[in-house]
Amino acid sequence: MNFDERQVIAALAEIFGSNHSGLIVGIGDDAAAVKTTPNSVITTDVAVEGTHFNTQWSGAFEIGRKITAANLADIYAMGATPQYLVVAMVLTGNETMEWIGDLARGIAHESRSCGAIVVGGDLTRGAIKVISIAAVGSVEKAITRASAQAGDSIYLSSLPGWSAAGLYLIQQESVDDLEAYAVEQFCAPSVDYSAAAAFAYSGATSMCDVSDALIVQAEQMAEASRLSFNFDIDAFTAHPEFDALHELANKHAVDVWQWIFAGGEDHVFLATGKDLPGLCVGKVISGGGVTGLEMKKAPDTWRHFL
Amino acid sequence: MNFDERQVIAALAEIFGSNHSGLIVGIGDDAAAVKTTPNSVITTDVAVEGTHFNTQWSGAFEIGRKITAANLADIYAMGATPQYLVVAMVLTGNETMEWIGDLARGIAHESRSCGAIVVGGDLTRGAIKVISIAAVGSVEKAITRASAQAGDSIYLSSLPGWSAAGLYLIQQESVDDLEAYAVEQFCAPSVDYSAAAAFAYSGATSMCDVSDALIVQAEQMAEASRLSFNFDIDAFTAHPEFDALHELANKHAVDVWQWIFAGGEDHVFLATGKDLPGLCVGKVISGGGVTGLEMKKAPDTWRHFL
Repeated sequence: MNFDERQVIAALAEIFGSNHSGLIVGIGDDAAAVKTTPNSVITTDVAVEGTHFNTQWSGAFEIGRKITAANLADIYAMGATPQYLVVAMVLTGNETMEWIGDLARGIAHESRSCGAIVVGGDLTRGAIKVISIAAVGSVEKAITRASAQAGDSIYLSSLPGWSAAGLYLIQQESVDDLEAYAVEQFCAPSVDYSAAAAFAYSGATSMCDVSDALIVQAEQMAEASRLSFNFDIDAFTAHPEFDALHELANKHAVDVWQWIFAGGEDHVFLATGKDLPGLCVGKVISGGGVTGLEMKKAPDTWRHFL
Repeated sequence: MNFDERQVIAALAEIFGSNHSGLIVGIGDDAAAVKTTPNSVITTDVAVEGTHFNTQWSGAFEIGRKITAANLADIYAMGATPQYLVVAMVLTGNETMEWIGDLARGIAHESRSCGAIVVGGDLTRGAIKVISIAAVGSVEKAITRASAQAGDSIYLSSLPGWSAAGLYLIQQESVDDLEAYAVEQFCAPSVDYSAAAAFAYSGATSMCDVSDALIVQAEQMAEASRLSFNFDIDAFTAHPEFDALHELANKHAVDVWQWIFAGGEDHVFLATGKDLPGLCVGKVISGGGVTGLEMKKAPDTWRHFL
């Protein structure tokens, strides 16, 4: 093994160290003690080597950012603000201190970009690397997936599909700038967290983080709200990024809708309501199910490597 | 693979289902929404197949109980009361629905024994099984490891060592009732959570969950409090369970102090204060370090299989 456990914990405590006003007892005790609001949201997301990330494709900093973004996006998707994270790391013992430090710096970087901090964790050994994060956030009134109203419009915070394109391209010999951008979005997506806050502030009736696939998550929201979600494909093509993604898909003979509708992991936010900011892509009407997200071939929503 | 992901999630949602008064939005949305108190504690603990558990030695229900107990004990060790848990499970795909259900029932059982509930989770695939839990609890004033006072006595909630004895015996051909009890304590310890609450209620000045080893955790508390922890070995021998553990150790030619001082994972609570309930095992005095926990051979505090 390349590192000593105490040494790693000391290094992590330094990287995650904070003088956040909500922190009462930080890293180093049995649990962290923190100030919380009357209503909180809690979520957890785990990333597994070989399933969610691959150290040959992604650097440790990117891996840290990506798994942290998955947790933060879930908090924002409830109309909440992230505050505290705990991080459980399973390491093989073959990692260098530099790699572990970069992983922690990626987690700290993404957290701080939202004003959240890591307050504790667990470090252990295993046959593969696993990073499991749980996040706690503050909320006044949670925005669920179940409260869309008939007559609402449907909004996306940005165009989904770049991460799915990146996953495709990382397995090819990718070269140009546009391809590199897509790969970057797969390895560590740039999540526009403020878009979720803007949806919440503007009175979104329901909201969701598109982490699996738009078709999957739209169906979940339609089912939870007991309404029909009708999408308008032309609204997607009007997005300023559509042409670039379309061109990339054509170049590689891929159905662009496979990436946009069946992709995920971009952590685009899907919301319903009236006069929201973002890309208006459809309408909520009475009934059930989802229309307008048809692809040329059956959706391939299994995003993992294994 | 032996199961369908949706089917598993539906089964887990049913097992973890609750009408807890603090629950606002439960399993099935991006995050759970819950009622929280002004001060909360947060912790996380991960269990890895081959490192912390072994499916040949422990049933799924026991594995679920054990990893949950590790989290709950950390919450209690802060003088707090556990409320909400989130559970991330990495499964290989070779598990049966029955095994997964038993794991969840073990987690739910141990949580409910403390009035806590599972409010969310993440389910994914990997080359080995990993269960990562994060727990949130309510606290008025956290009891840290750092606030022992000179003149305090040192207390244990019960005699440590049974889990360490169990780990030793599970690798032998164990047969009799006493040995079976020790093995049981290793596979799924019976944690006396109420003892931690009693310590907190009785004015413990510092407290800790002995999850690694008494010598390790006593040193951490002494260092954090900048005081010396002096243990009295005779106090341990006076414990009603000592003779049984001693006899077991002698039978297997093991130094019983190796189990008591260098064991762990029983989740015995170590506290300082005056007139606390539990086993009084020493005194806090000015100075630094730990005395009185000497063993015949160097401590073997590495409790894991790998």
